[in-house]
Amino acid sequence: MSIETITSADSLSDGPASAEQSTVLTDQEIFEAHQGGKLSIASTVPLASKRDLSIAYTPGVAQVSRAIHAEPELAKTLTWAQRLVVVVSDGTAVLGLGNIGPSASLPVMEGKSALFKSFGDLDSIPLVLNTTDVDEIIETLVRLRPSFGAVNLEDISAPRCFELEEKLIEALDCPVMHDDQHGTAVVVLAALTGAAKVTGRELEGLRVVVSGAGAAGIAVAEILLTAGIQDVVLLDSRGVINKQRADIAADPATKKAQMAQRSNPRGITGGPGEALLGADVFIGVSSSQLAEEHLKLMNHSSIVFALSNPDPEVLPEVASRYAAVVATGRSDFPNQINNVLAFPGIFRGALDAGARRITPAMKLAAARAIAELAEPELSADYIVPSPLDPRVAPAVSAAVAAAVEAE
Amino acid sequence: MSIETITSADSLSDGPASAEQSTVLTDQEIFEAHQGGKLSIASTVPLASKRDLSIAYTPGVAQVSRAIHAEPELAKTLTWAQRLVVVVSDGTAVLGLGNIGPSASLPVMEGKSALFKSFGDLDSIPLVLNTTDVDEIIETLVRLRPSFGAVNLEDISAPRCFELEEKLIEALDCPVMHDDQHGTAVVVLAALTGAAKVTGRELEGLRVVVSGAGAAGIAVAEILLTAGIQDVVLLDSRGVINKQRADIAADPATKKAQMAQRSNPRGITGGPGEALLGADVFIGVSSSQLAEEHLKLMNHSSIVFALSNPDPEVLPEVASRYAAVVATGRSDFPNQINNVLAFPGIFRGALDAGARRITPAMKLAAARAIAELAEPELSADYIVPSPLDPRVAPAVSAAVAAAVEAE
Repeated sequence: MSIETITSADSLSDGPASAEQSTVLTDQEIFEAHQGGKLSIASTVPLASKRDLSIAYTPGVAQVSRAIHAEPELAKTLTWAQRLVVVVSDGTAVLGLGNIGPSASLPVMEGKSALFKSFGDLDSIPLVLNTTDVDEIIETLVRLRPSFGAVNLEDISAPRCFELEEKLIEALDCPVMHDDQHGTAVVVLAALTGAAKVTGRELEGLRVVVSGAGAAGIAVAEILLTAGIQDVVLLDSRGVINKQRADIAADPATKKAQMAQRSNPRGITGGPGEALLGADVFIGVSSSQLAEEHLKLMNHSSIVFALSNPDPEVLPEVASRYAAVVATGRSDFPNQINNVLAFPGIFRGALDAGARRITPAMKLAAARAIAELAEPELSADYIVPSPLDPRVAPAVSAAVAAAVEAE
Repeated sequence: MSIETITSADSLSDGPASAEQSTVLTDQEIFEAHQGGKLSIASTVPLASKRDLSIAYTPGVAQVSRAIHAEPELAKTLTWAQRLVVVVSDGTAVLGLGNIGPSASLPVMEGKSALFKSFGDLDSIPLVLNTTDVDEIIETLVRLRPSFGAVNLEDISAPRCFELEEKLIEALDCPVMHDDQHGTAVVVLAALTGAAKVTGRELEGLRVVVSGAGAAGIAVAEILLTAGIQDVVLLDSRGVINKQRADIAADPATKKAQMAQRSNPRGITGGPGEALLGADVFIGVSSSQLAEEHLKLMNHSSIVFALSNPDPEVLPEVASRYAAVVATGRSDFPNQINNVLAFPGIFRGALDAGARRITPAMKLAAARAIAELAEPELSADYIVPSPLDPRVAPAVSAAVAAAVEAE
């Protein structure tokens, strides 16, 4: 462990961070913070007297158990389960580290649970699984169903993540969301809404290229299409996704094959060059680099979201030679596109409203709420609120809950 | 819900409680305390600045995940899992309420997790399962293995609990204990050690009758035999357990059949009357009443532990007409025999010492530690420390950890 991680501004500023504020995190500092894990359980009731014990435990608790047994709905208010989010991973696609397994993924999942608490005031626990079999993961969660109120799937590799999320939504009567897909998609849509305004364009009329057709890329393309954007072109490592590609046509049940039908209305073939020629927007969610020669092919006043972490597809100083708006996933550049803007409020709103599912309308409402918060101060360096902006989660959860009501 | 629960003294006294101090708990008070559940998650790291996020979450957390991936042992110190106790139930034998299911059992499991925190300073979460199949419960916990550090099985019906615990111990490389069995057994042994001293007897020479051959009864008999008591007689609803009984001989693999071999050295047959004639000790862990005519048959200066909750097998005022020492499970009588004396310290000691199993020697050490704390003030009304005595858990965990070292 000798590599030092260069990162972000040591400030609570809601405004755009500047690279100059960057400070260096030492390994020692990082490892000390993670010592013993990052979560702690507390009792919400006193346990200091015999009377306390009689209320919280026996014999008092028997009344509560009896009441739930007689009226199962009471479990929603008399236990913590209804508002408990389980953060579930099998460790197959952890950050940019790949398939490092469940134990090594746990620090990330603990962090996610901590964020749920800090930003959404929701209790959350990590459950990491020693199986990568989709049906076994589902079976496990079905058996544990009375223990929790919602499932945040995390860092599960594509294309398994698509099958897992779809089947799990069918199997469970509670909110389920794979954050790497939909959290990312919601924040990208919010940021793109701001960027379109800054560059004086209509969202629906944008020509968008999404580089990466994994969990995030597919979900981003999906939400952009749902939001009314007609011209979305997806790229994977073999080039533009289209109906002609034999590898894609070979299995029409895949997400890529479905996207080949729904995206790319101009029937583009080829690679990044063909895709980016005349494009307004580049959204990078793979680790493939964006070459400067391809950047040049984009329209004037283009929008570049280089979201790979820690190494963006193109560095902001390069991208900004051509693009009017540049965003990354990093906290040390302006316009940080970070899932924490979305997931705490989405789950909180879904649970507040008693939603059984997280629908496309709820995701659109979340994106709109994030975009609206940035709108009054919109600029090329401020297309989304800061991840630390305390207004975000309440605004998102209110919008999501309202969308549930409207449905 | 109109029945009011009569309970215990509203004091933190470590000395014997008296029934006069009893206060009435109202339903309203109980239900208010359980509103929203009894557990809460907190982050142990700050999440208020971008720098905080960079340390606790991305990009900093990647260093920690990478380190664990390279060296799996580091998960023990860099996550909360190693010291996390999961309280697992299928809701089949909840308190005295029977098979009320997982959701209705959850308030009890939350209470248990809260007790782990308050008394053992161990984080703990409840996992309640929608299956009562022993192999499915084991499979579920094996899949979740990287998420936790120890398993407290709770309120699982006999005889399934025996099979479940045995198989789970084989399947997992971490401490597993069914508290209804062994927590009870440890505290009973501790209390009996004190009661023997008070009545001037040697522990090993006691004639003991255990009424109830479920989870608690079998485990109590087991620990008494392990502690060197020769003459233990078990009673179930059909009478004395012995080798002659056809219902028991029919299935030699059961715990009852094993106990028929190991207990009852005088080959008693019949019912409670035959068992109690000349007995020194009655230990009730079933709900069957102990008749006064049977009490009379016991030896002079007898010891009566009437542990059924909330209704003891015999009320202390009746039992004390014949017995020199009377104990119950209730906080409103002297000598409360409560599992909270044992389980927090047993798990804490096992985890502190890195034990993979909770062995008979560790249980004996726990019982001895509890008994030793009561010894200086030993009296007929004080054979075990109060469940609230803050010395208990540290003493038990130290004794258990020392037993691990000795093995």
